Amino acid sequence: MFSKETYIGRRKVLMQKLQGRGIVLLPGNSEAPINYHANTYRFRQDSTFLYYFGLPISDLVGIIDTDTGEATLFGDDFTVEDIIWMGPQPRVVELAEQVGVKHTAPLAKLEPAIAEAVARGREIHILRPYRGDTRLMLEKIVPDAFLAPSEMLIQAVVAQRDKKSAEEIAEIEKACAIGHEMHLTAMKMCHPRAQEREIAGAIEVIALMKGWGTSFHSIVSQHGETLHNHSYNGILKEGRMLLVDAGAESVSNYCSDFTRTTPVSGKFTTKQKEIYDIVLAANNHAFSVSAPEIRYVDVHLAAARIIVEGLKELGLVKGDVEKAVSAGTHALFMPHGLGHQMGLDVHDMENLGEQYVGYDAETPRSKHPSCSACRMGRRLEAGMVVTVEPGIYFVPELIAKWRTESTCAEFVNFAAVEKYLDFGGIRLEDDMLITETGNRLLGKRLPITTEEVEAAILPS
Amino acid sequence: MFSKETYIGRRKVLMQKLQGRGIVLLPGNSEAPINYHANTYRFRQDSTFLYYFGLPISDLVGIIDTDTGEATLFGDDFTVEDIIWMGPQPRVVELAEQVGVKHTAPLAKLEPAIAEAVARGREIHILRPYRGDTRLMLEKIVPDAFLAPSEMLIQAVVAQRDKKSAEEIAEIEKACAIGHEMHLTAMKMCHPRAQEREIAGAIEVIALMKGWGTSFHSIVSQHGETLHNHSYNGILKEGRMLLVDAGAESVSNYCSDFTRTTPVSGKFTTKQKEIYDIVLAANNHAFSVSAPEIRYVDVHLAAARIIVEGLKELGLVKGDVEKAVSAGTHALFMPHGLGHQMGLDVHDMENLGEQYVGYDAETPRSKHPSCSACRMGRRLEAGMVVTVEPGIYFVPELIAKWRTESTCAEFVNFAAVEKYLDFGGIRLEDDMLITETGNRLLGKRLPITTEEVEAAILPS
Repeated sequence: MFSKETYIGRRKVLMQKLQGRGIVLLPGNSEAPINYHANTYRFRQDSTFLYYFGLPISDLVGIIDTDTGEATLFGDDFTVEDIIWMGPQPRVVELAEQVGVKHTAPLAKLEPAIAEAVARGREIHILRPYRGDTRLMLEKIVPDAFLAPSEMLIQAVVAQRDKKSAEEIAEIEKACAIGHEMHLTAMKMCHPRAQEREIAGAIEVIALMKGWGTSFHSIVSQHGETLHNHSYNGILKEGRMLLVDAGAESVSNYCSDFTRTTPVSGKFTTKQKEIYDIVLAANNHAFSVSAPEIRYVDVHLAAARIIVEGLKELGLVKGDVEKAVSAGTHALFMPHGLGHQMGLDVHDMENLGEQYVGYDAETPRSKHPSCSACRMGRRLEAGMVVTVEPGIYFVPELIAKWRTESTCAEFVNFAAVEKYLDFGGIRLEDDMLITETGNRLLGKRLPITTEEVEAAILPS
Repeated sequence: MFSKETYIGRRKVLMQKLQGRGIVLLPGNSEAPINYHANTYRFRQDSTFLYYFGLPISDLVGIIDTDTGEATLFGDDFTVEDIIWMGPQPRVVELAEQVGVKHTAPLAKLEPAIAEAVARGREIHILRPYRGDTRLMLEKIVPDAFLAPSEMLIQAVVAQRDKKSAEEIAEIEKACAIGHEMHLTAMKMCHPRAQEREIAGAIEVIALMKGWGTSFHSIVSQHGETLHNHSYNGILKEGRMLLVDAGAESVSNYCSDFTRTTPVSGKFTTKQKEIYDIVLAANNHAFSVSAPEIRYVDVHLAAARIIVEGLKELGLVKGDVEKAVSAGTHALFMPHGLGHQMGLDVHDMENLGEQYVGYDAETPRSKHPSCSACRMGRRLEAGMVVTVEPGIYFVPELIAKWRTESTCAEFVNFAAVEKYLDFGGIRLEDDMLITETGNRLLGKRLPITTEEVEAAILPS
């Protein structure tokens, strides 16, 4: 948590943007049941609630009155029965004080407060709920007329949350330090016959011990071609590569997100190194061109050009590079975008809608095959944090589909590509802060050249 | 997962119980979002769905037609787009085959199937949803007349799930073996200046590496008097005790649940040992009296008698032991019941309702202070698995409340009790299978005498 002045300041900015437009209603999360009501997952507060109200505690709701400039925190104090089970807890007034909120009320007063505001002709602004329990709560207390997410509120929140302050960057760097340790640990353990499950456990415990936990379900797989592989059932085999895509949240829930790809046998084969070095060049190139005013979709396309050029040299792609990129040839090998914003969410603000977070009126979402998978396309601004995560994968099902449908057939040498069907995939991901003058890497750089990665593996 | 014959057999028993009463609708769980829709917690299937349909995969719904004896699995096959992100997956017909289900259909067919059954005058039986997303789904497809949980279905499910088969016991023993390793690890690490967070991480990783994960949020606290303390912020101090209440789920989601209390300084003080030995005697006594036909509330009261006797010898309780127990004096020191059923849920079937799982028509829930906190009271039967978890705690807020309200004032020596306000709490929990002739401990017994526990701590 930051100081109360931080939260007071953030709410003030939001109020000014929506001045005179009524009530902003920001529900915190409740506990998320696993297999029955009382057995819950590790509590994670909603990120927008955290941003404006800071408290990592369940069953709180914040409202901001844009006319009066006042915020109210709704929540219930613990009973003696609660204290027996959960220990003593600060009262709601004490919690509110920690984040500079002067008014509090029990949760039972929320519904009448909303009803009264509506009766007085005021608007209610909410965001899109992503949990069923939040949706049920909102459906109960918010009149139908205001149940759709408020575009005005979304745009105001995105405009604030997408520029990170110095204290937020410091938190992200704490998360990067934890992520760094996680990846070095995974590299050390990358040996034939090691279990993916063991490595996943070893890196998850670092995130648990040093921060809130992982920022998303770690990907620890020798099948890197499956982009979000959540299975840990593999046993590492000589000759394959282990792709680890993992990050941590700091205790205050700011995120990191890195990917490295490590050879199980300790050394990359020539075939692996050739592909690896193309991905690395794309990663480095993205850092060399990212700066304020540059559209991130153009950085994506610049990285795509490096990938297509490299694959052309290897004979997997043919024809004119510019035309191949324009046709979206790279999407066979990298069927995802170059990166996404990162902050209190590892895909920052993803629940607010990609059209507001990754795109805007000037740079709308494109369906063009060259960039249709991009989560982030709009102009970079100083203070933004984005991931840079180019990759090259050989997905047998996708290759078969393109071949059958003759997609980009004039640019893809399918016969050559099909020699890579058991290759797997390589992704190299770092986190980047956009500065006034360009950008900088967040955290200390993880081993990334083939030599550095090979040196990071402990002798088995 | 078990063989398909297991699931066919279980569904057959259920069908016979409800024969001619219509459709049983058992939704599996969907993914549970953390902070946006696509960032999810580790997937956990619903336990009743697992029991009858076995598949640990999200977004499946099973229905059982009690007239025709046929089961249908509703689910959607992966698209190529899904395969790129999540890897190749078996088709729904292949999944259904694994658990002996002959009929499958896409999820879009579920609503019309239910509507058609209702139109033909058939009943729909559901259980109580514990996740908002399941509730929203049920509200959409089930007519209001059938939205209340079906008592008939609940009773049939409880009657099956509460007697564990040999293959289920074998799974529980796998979970016990993981839990054993978790607790030995925690004991080894119990030293002054160790962080609760480090120990919590070290035991969680064992559950992650060897099984599905922990069976519930581990309690790792030197404030054992807070029964469900989920904070890991403490740093262990000389003279205190560390209470660890933790268990694992096997890869097939059967649970274990153990508690041990370890002295941070390496040796129990005389004051600690005196209380510890009372709790140990209560634990042992519960094993000596538990058997088929015995009501578990009577085992609770037998353990309570041991606790009151022991505390009387120490001068904390006074007067007639039988009368003190009848008045509920022990509830000041042990404000919880002796244990709960355990199986696919660590509190087995808790979402089905305590009145069906822990109680029945013969032994209804009592509000009497001597046993009002018991989750489980009814007669034990061979095949049941229950936890045995007596404890003695000194909860300052509860002691103050009883003193103020003169609760059990003729049996409690408050002046003596108040010398224990900074004592903390001790709980000793094991898992017990009821056999035809009595009971047996599940798993290998963890160190439990003060000598054994002291010997399990590594020299710091």
